[in-house]
Amino acid sequence: MAPSGNISIVLYLFKRLHELGGDFNLSALDLLPDAGLYWVGNCNELNAAYAADGYARIKGISALITTFGVGELSALAGVAGSFSEHVPVVHIVGIPNTIAQRNGLLLHHTLGNGDFTVFQNMSRNISVTSTILNDPHRAASEIDRVLSACWVKARPSTAGLPTDIAPAEIPAAHLDTPLDLKIPDNEPETESEVVDEITRLMYNSKNTIILADACAIRHRVLDELHELVEKTRLPTFVSPMGKGAVNEELEWYGGVYVGDVSRDEVRQRVDDAELILYVGGLQSDFNSGGFTYRISRKNTVEFHSDHMKVRYSEFPGIQMQPVLRKLLDKLDYSKVQTHSVPDVSNVIPHKVQESVSQEINHAWLWPRVGQWLREGDVIITETGTSNFGIWETRFPKNVTAISQVLWGSIGYSVGALQGAALACKEKYPERRVILFVGDGSLQLTVQEISTMIRHGLKPIIFVINNKGYTIERMIHGMKAIYNDIQPWNHTDLLSLFGADPSDAMSYLCKSKTELENLFKDEKFSSAPYIQLVEIFMPWQDAPRALIKIGRVTASLNEGSGSG
Amino acid sequence: MAPSGNISIVLYLFKRLHELGGDFNLSALDLLPDAGLYWVGNCNELNAAYAADGYARIKGISALITTFGVGELSALAGVAGSFSEHVPVVHIVGIPNTIAQRNGLLLHHTLGNGDFTVFQNMSRNISVTSTILNDPHRAASEIDRVLSACWVKARPSTAGLPTDIAPAEIPAAHLDTPLDLKIPDNEPETESEVVDEITRLMYNSKNTIILADACAIRHRVLDELHELVEKTRLPTFVSPMGKGAVNEELEWYGGVYVGDVSRDEVRQRVDDAELILYVGGLQSDFNSGGFTYRISRKNTVEFHSDHMKVRYSEFPGIQMQPVLRKLLDKLDYSKVQTHSVPDVSNVIPHKVQESVSQEINHAWLWPRVGQWLREGDVIITETGTSNFGIWETRFPKNVTAISQVLWGSIGYSVGALQGAALACKEKYPERRVILFVGDGSLQLTVQEISTMIRHGLKPIIFVINNKGYTIERMIHGMKAIYNDIQPWNHTDLLSLFGADPSDAMSYLCKSKTELENLFKDEKFSSAPYIQLVEIFMPWQDAPRALIKIGRVTASLNEGSGSG
Repeated sequence: MAPSGNISIVLYLFKRLHELGGDFNLSALDLLPDAGLYWVGNCNELNAAYAADGYARIKGISALITTFGVGELSALAGVAGSFSEHVPVVHIVGIPNTIAQRNGLLLHHTLGNGDFTVFQNMSRNISVTSTILNDPHRAASEIDRVLSACWVKARPSTAGLPTDIAPAEIPAAHLDTPLDLKIPDNEPETESEVVDEITRLMYNSKNTIILADACAIRHRVLDELHELVEKTRLPTFVSPMGKGAVNEELEWYGGVYVGDVSRDEVRQRVDDAELILYVGGLQSDFNSGGFTYRISRKNTVEFHSDHMKVRYSEFPGIQMQPVLRKLLDKLDYSKVQTHSVPDVSNVIPHKVQESVSQEINHAWLWPRVGQWLREGDVIITETGTSNFGIWETRFPKNVTAISQVLWGSIGYSVGALQGAALACKEKYPERRVILFVGDGSLQLTVQEISTMIRHGLKPIIFVINNKGYTIERMIHGMKAIYNDIQPWNHTDLLSLFGADPSDAMSYLCKSKTELENLFKDEKFSSAPYIQLVEIFMPWQDAPRALIKIGRVTASLNEGSGSG
Repeated sequence: MAPSGNISIVLYLFKRLHELGGDFNLSALDLLPDAGLYWVGNCNELNAAYAADGYARIKGISALITTFGVGELSALAGVAGSFSEHVPVVHIVGIPNTIAQRNGLLLHHTLGNGDFTVFQNMSRNISVTSTILNDPHRAASEIDRVLSACWVKARPSTAGLPTDIAPAEIPAAHLDTPLDLKIPDNEPETESEVVDEITRLMYNSKNTIILADACAIRHRVLDELHELVEKTRLPTFVSPMGKGAVNEELEWYGGVYVGDVSRDEVRQRVDDAELILYVGGLQSDFNSGGFTYRISRKNTVEFHSDHMKVRYSEFPGIQMQPVLRKLLDKLDYSKVQTHSVPDVSNVIPHKVQESVSQEINHAWLWPRVGQWLREGDVIITETGTSNFGIWETRFPKNVTAISQVLWGSIGYSVGALQGAALACKEKYPERRVILFVGDGSLQLTVQEISTMIRHGLKPIIFVINNKGYTIERMIHGMKAIYNDIQPWNHTDLLSLFGADPSDAMSYLCKSKTELENLFKDEKFSSAPYIQLVEIFMPWQDAPRALIKIGRVTASLNEGSGSG
């Protein structure tokens, strides 16, 4: 900080981020250490955006810094994913100075047309709010506004920082007022009305269930949700994007509900419910089993971050968090009737267990992974077979699942792993960080493994070698050449990226026995170094849910436009 | 083609592209072979966009196909580069079907807000024109309009193709009318006026020079330019982005003009000129030596794709190509006085040659590369030291230079190499395709080497290992940690990516002698397989021009906002 009691605008920005507990993916700034922040430096900006997203899913928020134009645009697909999936990431762009902007200079990293607003105009489509810090006098309030919006709305915001404004000094006293991060209060009368109605419905229902979805995690109501689940002991289900939202060790945990793609007993159980408390719902195609949810408004209460729905009535602007808090205080739990749940376990199906084949298939793999997982694990699954396979596992306590069921950007998981592993290193060093990625997806963002090695991160990376894009084969072109990929020697990756042989291990598993032995090996399961496991699986095999949803999507895909 | 004399809209689109001689980077379509097109399949969409750009710089145009949202946005930084640098690339996006669009379905690859126009709105900022092919009846004319604009304006255009429209059939007869690709005629009287005035100026000048820049290449006036240079024998210079535009073997070739960053005798010679014929000028910061051009309007004629400037008079809408053509017909070459040029050679400076040090430095490397180059080579240099080093070479005949001096997206060159090498394989199998890339830049897009192996491409890849981002060190943070990178074992790359050992070679050069021997080795210089050469160079060394422009840019950089 400057002696005068002043502080540079860039340092002000960093100190505010530090206040939020954020981190950086950064290419060229010197002040981070002064703000108590740590510099990462990913291999490219898209990977950095994915990493920022993964980091924010563990620590609550993150920041991404890119240069003007080239870096900024390279990151957009990642930032759009954070917008789509409700993840708070602050995108800071180092932009040309105010004089250059005024004179429309023909600078590198521009379109050569003197327009310095075009890139931010593009970003505005995927940000909750944005600013260009051209006015030093408004810089502090603008920075606070952009950071608060990012946190409160749990979505990206963008700030352009001109190179001549960054060092300009403002009074440090601005920092004495903490950022305002609380969500506005609900209108009290409407809120009580909503809570009363929910209470009444719960007392009258003989068969109530709780269904937890993405926004329960993203909009930070997990404390309230856990309390509701534990005090009511109501049968609790999760959507794919809600995986990890509740404690799956509870005996009244009922499994993953995905409409018609659910296991039959789960679908049956949800269909039979008299009342559904649906918390943080996000009914996207894959998350809803291709729009096959069968829960009618008549017996559903929907909890959202910006509105509530109680059966047929909507309450715009009424936010779920205070509603849940009031509900928890008000409920007479003795009047809440609970009910049985389907059995959910990580037991490998008999005929699979009995099979003499040593081939590793999905029906065997995912329950086995479920058995191997530990309390506190962070498990990241790539859009593809892994994202569907993970539905077949029952998690231990406090497992965090990271994936992109809605945005579904292939390659995301490797960048997200880097960010999540860094966040755990800083905040939860005891947690394991585990990735399941396909050989096809890995090719998009593979270089981020180098960043993990560089920063001494210790993830366990499972690479599923099934000779290409199996998820695409399921949707279109089972044997099409465009679903094949160039075969890589995956077990050489760690050494290529400069890992110290004494501080890294690679394994190749072509049989169940080889993988079984690895899972049983305590040294492997808790190694203090980075590990990569290549698993060979048949290219035409896929998890139960993917095969099922593949059928739904194949027809619906005329609509998804998705490769 | 359908028996009925009908053709599906997607096949119509592909056949039109084939008519343009374009190619594809494609994720999921089956009809390419039917249109005589070849599918590539890059590792990710940004790399695909870079590859499409490199391919178009060799074959004239290319096409890039991505999926909706995730793929589309991942490619934007590459497409923006094509826009910035005037390269015609058609960006085709597979989008959800028209019913899904109308109903605003919550599909994967969307922002979850039912808005299906947002991504194209973003692309519109970096396209000359765009369309969404929602109406089968207008599809053929829209496709023709978008392709023609892309070709004529030599910049990207975008077309969204809904999955239900792609297979819809239209009359094949549309194909009987060829695409209209000719530029509109100039207004005849103004054109003659311009040509007369230029002729008069040329006859009266005792010291005329020609300066060739980027748009002479991009807007296809090289035939006219070559004729002008050869018939007038006027001293001819090129800008950095004009490198390769003229035959540098001609004795009246004068070297690279970059304002104050030029070699002194070049700057002097251009400053002294009485009349400058400046063809296809693009005065961006790096291309103009940090805006240090000293050519005054008083004695300059500027030839542009959409206007002309003759001294102080401007002629909007008058295009250079027909003007040059008329000028060539009209000139009495006996009345054109020519003049001496500075000596330009690939001779290594004495004190560098004499030095006993075996360390490979830039002062030695680039003239030596100049000696090694052959007629017809395609040489790609990465934004960084290589982009500046190449200015120090005099090319043999018909060498094509590919780089991004204006857009300057680090990592571009590796993707561009894949596209350029593929284009040469198809059209000029005898041409060598050579890349110079730094170890830092390589990390952004390294996986494209795998695509080159997959398609049996034979480039020579020189990886300059100078321990990080030297160009950034020159601008800011000479020893800053954010300019360091994770060290990789580059010579293992080809085998990691699955190259057959008998069909690939890697070399490590730490001394001048080792590299000298490689350059002298005919087997290396004309090998029929992919080769990678890692060159160790001191991290603080840089080409003459970069050191000089670094000083200019360091001050100007307060304005460039660039890392």
